[in-house]
Amino acid sequence: MPPKIENRIPDIVIGRLPLYLRALTRLKQEGIEVTSSHELGQRLGISSAQIRKDLSHFGGFGKQGTGYQIDFLVDKLQNVLKLDRHWKIAVIGAGNLGSAISHYRGFSDRGFEISWLFDADPDKVGTQVDRFVVRPLSELKDTLTKNHCQIAMVAVPAQHAQTVANMLVEAGIKAILNYAPINLTVPEGVMVQYIDPVVHMQHMTYYLEDK
Amino acid sequence: MPPKIENRIPDIVIGRLPLYLRALTRLKQEGIEVTSSHELGQRLGISSAQIRKDLSHFGGFGKQGTGYQIDFLVDKLQNVLKLDRHWKIAVIGAGNLGSAISHYRGFSDRGFEISWLFDADPDKVGTQVDRFVVRPLSELKDTLTKNHCQIAMVAVPAQHAQTVANMLVEAGIKAILNYAPINLTVPEGVMVQYIDPVVHMQHMTYYLEDK
Repeated sequence: MPPKIENRIPDIVIGRLPLYLRALTRLKQEGIEVTSSHELGQRLGISSAQIRKDLSHFGGFGKQGTGYQIDFLVDKLQNVLKLDRHWKIAVIGAGNLGSAISHYRGFSDRGFEISWLFDADPDKVGTQVDRFVVRPLSELKDTLTKNHCQIAMVAVPAQHAQTVANMLVEAGIKAILNYAPINLTVPEGVMVQYIDPVVHMQHMTYYLEDK
Repeated sequence: MPPKIENRIPDIVIGRLPLYLRALTRLKQEGIEVTSSHELGQRLGISSAQIRKDLSHFGGFGKQGTGYQIDFLVDKLQNVLKLDRHWKIAVIGAGNLGSAISHYRGFSDRGFEISWLFDADPDKVGTQVDRFVVRPLSELKDTLTKNHCQIAMVAVPAQHAQTVANMLVEAGIKAILNYAPINLTVPEGVMVQYIDPVVHMQHMTYYLEDK
């Protein structure tokens, strides 16, 4: 990340936009229509100066003092992040985690739609998980290619994650969210982001005291 | 983060140590005994200079050219991150995600032990999830205080997450891993880290092309 050399906005800035969007959507749900970089900063633990600097990359929202129109800023951020559409997602791995992901209802109103669930296990293939029938990996490439799917979540054991990643690259996937606790090797132009709860907890234990 | 003012090592460095530990453990499992900052960097997509700089905060491991003894470095990192013990973890929320976490077997060999599962729903309390009997939130404070539990995972719906966080702070929790897509407000000295798959995907969609 970022895969595009010509991209001018620092990736670290892009990475903060979803946090701004999440906090703004929350404020909107609370019936608030206008906010400030100060209020946003307090919610996020980010300095208001940083927020103003980040947002300035995308043109002027709200002038100094008058604050941000939340509706407008939400629309703008959704547009910048290409969330003014639904992205279809393939989930690989129908174990406990893959099933939990398949049951989760919080994706659709944030721009994503879980569309397929795949697993290598013949005993799982064909079974129903939430609204999905588990598909075999043999159908992965055709299904994702035909549907121009670009995003996949990997929820398989660590020892299978790289093999699955290779299949996803073969199938034209450009963005992988990897839940397996292993670093994936992918070609240029394919993005990988990682979710590993242990990494977060090990970060925090450094600061904990023995009890 | 970091909660300790006197802590001298930048938090961003501490945050990378679990990634180094994960990659080194992987190399060890592959039977490799010695590695280099170059090899490690390639695995992690981090520059070898950065890795050497980060590790130099903790004294000299492996001299230039001779590389790092993986066993030694793993022990050292586990020691620095206080993983030379098992940290008991409380999971709040026995829904699909909380259940998946309870079933997951990948915590124990990385320094953590899921020890209790709590839920507010009377229909869930008392039921068995993996090796846990779901406990009511009314038992949260006594259980965690008595056992000096310092780490909790929040896997409840967004609208309940802050309330649960307040209860956890009350119960003496110092480190919260929050899966709910909402920013939590906690007092000084309590750490929160976030896991939100949508934030990662929204980060990547910025770079995707319409298909």
